[in-house]
Amino acid sequence: MLEQLKLDVLQANLDLVKNGLVLFTWGNVSAIDRESGYVVIKPSGVEYVNMSAEDMVVVDLDGKIAEGKYRPSSDTPTHLEIYKQHSEIGGIVHTHSAYATAFAQAGRRIPVYGTTHADYFYGDIPCARTLTFAETEDYEKNTGVIINETFAHKDVSAVPACLVAHHGVFAWGKNASQAVYHATVAEQVAKTAFLTELLGGSDVLPRHIADKHYKRKHGKNAYYGQNKR
Amino acid sequence: MLEQLKLDVLQANLDLVKNGLVLFTWGNVSAIDRESGYVVIKPSGVEYVNMSAEDMVVVDLDGKIAEGKYRPSSDTPTHLEIYKQHSEIGGIVHTHSAYATAFAQAGRRIPVYGTTHADYFYGDIPCARTLTFAETEDYEKNTGVIINETFAHKDVSAVPACLVAHHGVFAWGKNASQAVYHATVAEQVAKTAFLTELLGGSDVLPRHIADKHYKRKHGKNAYYGQNKR
Amino acid sequence: MLEQLKLDVLQANLDLVKNGLVLFTWGNVSAIDRESGYVVIKPSGVEYVNMSAEDMVVVDLDGKIAEGKYRPSSDTPTHLEIYKQHSEIGGIVHTHSAYATAFAQAGRRIPVYGTTHADYFYGDIPCARTLTFAETEDYEKNTGVIINETFAHKDVSAVPACLVAHHGVFAWGKNASQAVYHATVAEQVAKTAFLTELLGGSDVLPRHIADKHYKRKHGKNAYYGQNKR
Amino acid sequence: MLEQLKLDVLQANLDLVKNGLVLFTWGNVSAIDRESGYVVIKPSGVEYVNMSAEDMVVVDLDGKIAEGKYRPSSDTPTHLEIYKQHSEIGGIVHTHSAYATAFAQAGRRIPVYGTTHADYFYGDIPCARTLTFAETEDYEKNTGVIINETFAHKDVSAVPACLVAHHGVFAWGKNASQAVYHATVAEQVAKTAFLTELLGGSDVLPRHIADKHYKRKHGKNAYYGQNKR
Repeated sequence: MLEQLKLDVLQANLDLVKNGLVLFTWGNVSAIDRESGYVVIKPSGVEYVNMSAEDMVVVDLDGKIAEGKYRPSSDTPTHLEIYKQHSEIGGIVHTHSAYATAFAQAGRRIPVYGTTHADYFYGDIPCARTLTFAETEDYEKNTGVIINETFAHKDVSAVPACLVAHHGVFAWGKNASQAVYHATVAEQVAKTAFLTELLGGSDVLPRHIADKHYKRKHGKNAYYGQNKR
Repeated sequence: MLEQLKLDVLQANLDLVKNGLVLFTWGNVSAIDRESGYVVIKPSGVEYVNMSAEDMVVVDLDGKIAEGKYRPSSDTPTHLEIYKQHSEIGGIVHTHSAYATAFAQAGRRIPVYGTTHADYFYGDIPCARTLTFAETEDYEKNTGVIINETFAHKDVSAVPACLVAHHGVFAWGKNASQAVYHATVAEQVAKTAFLTELLGGSDVLPRHIADKHYKRKHGKNAYYGQNKR
Repeated sequence: MLEQLKLDVLQANLDLVKNGLVLFTWGNVSAIDRESGYVVIKPSGVEYVNMSAEDMVVVDLDGKIAEGKYRPSSDTPTHLEIYKQHSEIGGIVHTHSAYATAFAQAGRRIPVYGTTHADYFYGDIPCARTLTFAETEDYEKNTGVIINETFAHKDVSAVPACLVAHHGVFAWGKNASQAVYHATVAEQVAKTAFLTELLGGSDVLPRHIADKHYKRKHGKNAYYGQNKR
Repeated sequence: MLEQLKLDVLQANLDLVKNGLVLFTWGNVSAIDRESGYVVIKPSGVEYVNMSAEDMVVVDLDGKIAEGKYRPSSDTPTHLEIYKQHSEIGGIVHTHSAYATAFAQAGRRIPVYGTTHADYFYGDIPCARTLTFAETEDYEKNTGVIINETFAHKDVSAVPACLVAHHGVFAWGKNASQAVYHATVAEQVAKTAFLTELLGGSDVLPRHIADKHYKRKHGKNAYYGQNKR
């Protein structure tokens, strides 16, 4: 079942490696088939070099395995929680890419210092809070809950990534491929923000420039690229 | 038309990737044929891996497409504004290379800390100001205008690059290849300047050494290399 | 003798290069056959590109060469001292990977800033003290002694790495391969901790999250991966 | 003439690229044949990718070209000045590797923070002063003069590298290959020292450990490697 989606999810997982976002098996990508409600996700702890499309695991939105010889990523409940809350999301990525994780470990959101940030994120990349002791009982699910909490008044389409304090980064998009794209952008944005702060930069990009850049690429008046994304 | 120039511009765009200056499609190179007044530039948002010389777009100095199946880079009006003001420029590059962009995001020019900087730039690499709200109306054109404003009393041949605050870097040269060369040097100079400042260095290179190095490579008494560049 | 162990040790040494942990010949891996008490270790100062399994040196726990045409790594007495004290260790790595070594040169342990650290280390990665003048007489042996001293009240299985002040990092595991894995994790953890501190982060991961992450991967209730490690 | 030495110098120049020490043509290696007094050096401004052994230039110690179709590196007089003063030097490298150059641009020597530094350098890597206005008249020669001045009371065999303020690094050895080796070590030592300082480290390696490490690898009691270097 969902053969094309398995291939997409495999390819997206391999792109994490190619884009330098993961070490060993430390990352995962999923995608959802909204019609059936099934989610395809990377198996837990399997090395990228040995993965095939058939190794991808299919689960329903309650986390029940529908198909697959492996256990799904241990972060699956986080993915499911986000999919359930945000119907516009089709693919989710979790990584510990170095610079984004450094902001997360410092407990900090990433401010909009430049136009590259503004091209893809309509505002800061926020940082979800640390879970309480009680919340660790259902740890992975509650990681999704606090990401949703962080986006209670934000648009997940306009800000397609969220740091989680002391942990790492989640990114998403309309499909697995776009989720990886946004995770890669988030890491580059985090790296440049890091370098900017070390040079003493603290002024954020004026709002009128940020708006201009975001709208060059998004919405009905977008004029970047050959087709609207 | 302009088949050789299209090949040059394609090659220069691919060299941006090879030299590590761009992620995804985030950069562009153009070159001008001064005789006809036509500018050849990368198409907007097309992936480097799929680009051929035939995909390059030919525009006149008013931005009108003379040939090409794609839309030109959305930054085309910036390039045109620079070409119109500075007849000695034959090729222009725009990138968001990490260290140069960090200086730009911090709103800072790059001081002359060492001889490598002095070999290629006769003074600081300046940083153009942020555009006003009104100027965002014609955003890309006005980005060129403020670069020209920044060089009102500078020689574009002697300082072949300009940062743009909160944005990135533009570099140029007598042709597309030399423009990429200067963009690559600017990134290396930015990186070394960054490291220097973090080590507590703040003294700039004394003027007599800077002059000596620049003149080893430029002008009638240059003696570096086999031929004068 | 010990042909498989020699292959394992060779492969582990080559993985140091592949994982970017060593420059030139600056690193070494060993493994112990607990039944015979023999240790297989890399020869001293031989280039990785020329090494074969037959070049590995076999020594007993007193350091006497049992087999091998080369002299063993000059750090052999350090390895032996650790093996003698900790029977649960099957493989040991020594590197000067850049970020871990920077913490060591600063004389600092690596605090638990994030969940990746907590996934593999049950607490800080400690830093052994500098040897005294008298201790340099038997330098390599005493390096092992101070590592053991540092772990007098720690569990080497729960914290599988130790910095040595002004020197570098030792890591270990149940075999040579896992030792290299832990050395690679330690370097990534050190790099992310470095970036975190430069962003102003100083709060460590709350204990309840650290415990949760460690126990996802270790102990009888572990649920990460397909099999318990 | 000197066919083997030309091959050695070519190989050493290519190793600069392989070891990541140079961008474009920004580096040079030479070697001297002490019997004839001839020095073989890289031609000026020729791209590495096109260089062959026959392109190497042979000059005498007065800088007169004895053989070669190209002009020698513009830094040739610096090399000659060092060869003339220090008969134990057989090969010299000049690079602008990023971290070593950052220390040079900050006008700072590199302190001995760790054992890797101590393994190869018997003390700080010093930083030669900036040339005066008058000294720029014979710039490249005087760069050699101030390096010699910096080593007036130091042993070039025990400290095989020197930074030059606001410029870059020179390294040397008994031949071209060892000079490249020392330049590569100097860059790694500079990088680790940089990271150490950013982590707040300021204590240098105690002298008794530094001595121990240096003597493990040098002198009649050396015991690192298979043969004494």
